[in-house]
Amino acid sequence: MNPIFEIEDTHIIYDMLDKAEYGTLALSVDDKPYAVPVNFVRIDDVLYFHGALSNKKMKILAQNPQVSFSVVENYALIDSDFSSNDGLACPATQFFKSVSVEGVTTVVTDRAEKAQVFTALMQKLQPKGGYKPFSDAAYDTAIKATAVVKIEVKHLSCKFKFGQHLNNERFEMILSHLEERNTEIDRKTIELMKDQRENDGI
Amino acid sequence: MNPIFEIEDTHIIYDMLDKAEYGTLALSVDDKPYAVPVNFVRIDDVLYFHGALSNKKMKILAQNPQVSFSVVENYALIDSDFSSNDGLACPATQFFKSVSVEGVTTVVTDRAEKAQVFTALMQKLQPKGGYKPFSDAAYDTAIKATAVVKIEVKHLSCKFKFGQHLNNERFEMILSHLEERNTEIDRKTIELMKDQRENDGI
Repeated sequence: MNPIFEIEDTHIIYDMLDKAEYGTLALSVDDKPYAVPVNFVRIDDVLYFHGALSNKKMKILAQNPQVSFSVVENYALIDSDFSSNDGLACPATQFFKSVSVEGVTTVVTDRAEKAQVFTALMQKLQPKGGYKPFSDAAYDTAIKATAVVKIEVKHLSCKFKFGQHLNNERFEMILSHLEERNTEIDRKTIELMKDQRENDGI
Repeated sequence: MNPIFEIEDTHIIYDMLDKAEYGTLALSVDDKPYAVPVNFVRIDDVLYFHGALSNKKMKILAQNPQVSFSVVENYALIDSDFSSNDGLACPATQFFKSVSVEGVTTVVTDRAEKAQVFTALMQKLQPKGGYKPFSDAAYDTAIKATAVVKIEVKHLSCKFKFGQHLNNERFEMILSHLEERNTEIDRKTIELMKDQRENDGI
């Protein structure tokens, strides 16, 4: 992908990770890849996910702790005629935010660290609260029976595609088509395109 | 995951794949995994995606054609108190549909087959049409410059989680909490839970 799409602002990247409900882990054993979606949470510059103690991903990670982790937020599908009048299909595309992490995993065994991860995960996915804190002994068995995995980030990259590669005429053309189609995802896309134009001076 | 979540009805699985805008490919070279999201299309029992001729995924696939491919459709987050009154966080979960494919890739070089894939992909992502057919010579250069990859499916599995593992009381409790919260994704989830109950006689 063109370097024009690369985002390096950690604040923007963390914001996207903190809003994403799940990402897809890629694992590998004996050069056989395995993709599996997981809910996850970021604490500082580390990611965590959890699962059953003895499922397929835990067995693979015990043999090869390397992972690649992908988080995507899809925006509007851009029809071919949204940015061009040449009658070809080629300009059809999709706008998106995408974060890609290369990392190495370790299994968390300390009860306090596991409790901290579950606390952060619940704050992310159930911000209203309404449950006992994980320090409560009522969780001892459940915490012991659940694997928590830490992903140490070795490399992180982020790509946004919101028309920033297009000239002003095509950018405006897409905006006006999205305003006309006006679905919920179109409105979300319009908002981001306008924010981006203000920030980047497109 | 509990076998109760497994779905084997090809019609249901294909329907989900045909509605999904993208999936995440896991690749591996020298046991280093690589996760990358791609738009894709199903034709019969085969999946296709496309990309630049010489990007990272094409270089990895040239060395190791094995892939794992994951497609997820997320539904409502189920708060811990939606199905239990014990004050613990443990019942918190997310409902989802998830398809997982293990496959082997080959690069498609035949112009007619590539045109068929682009046609199917456009029908999926831009159903209104409005572009010249891919048989047109105007596409010759673009088709030559774009890689199309076929995933032959070696194993496919599908898991749905919509409360089918819960007893009737908890199932109804979740329905009533979703009806109360009533976001767009909650309404979509309610619809699927009710469909599922009718079909499975829960």
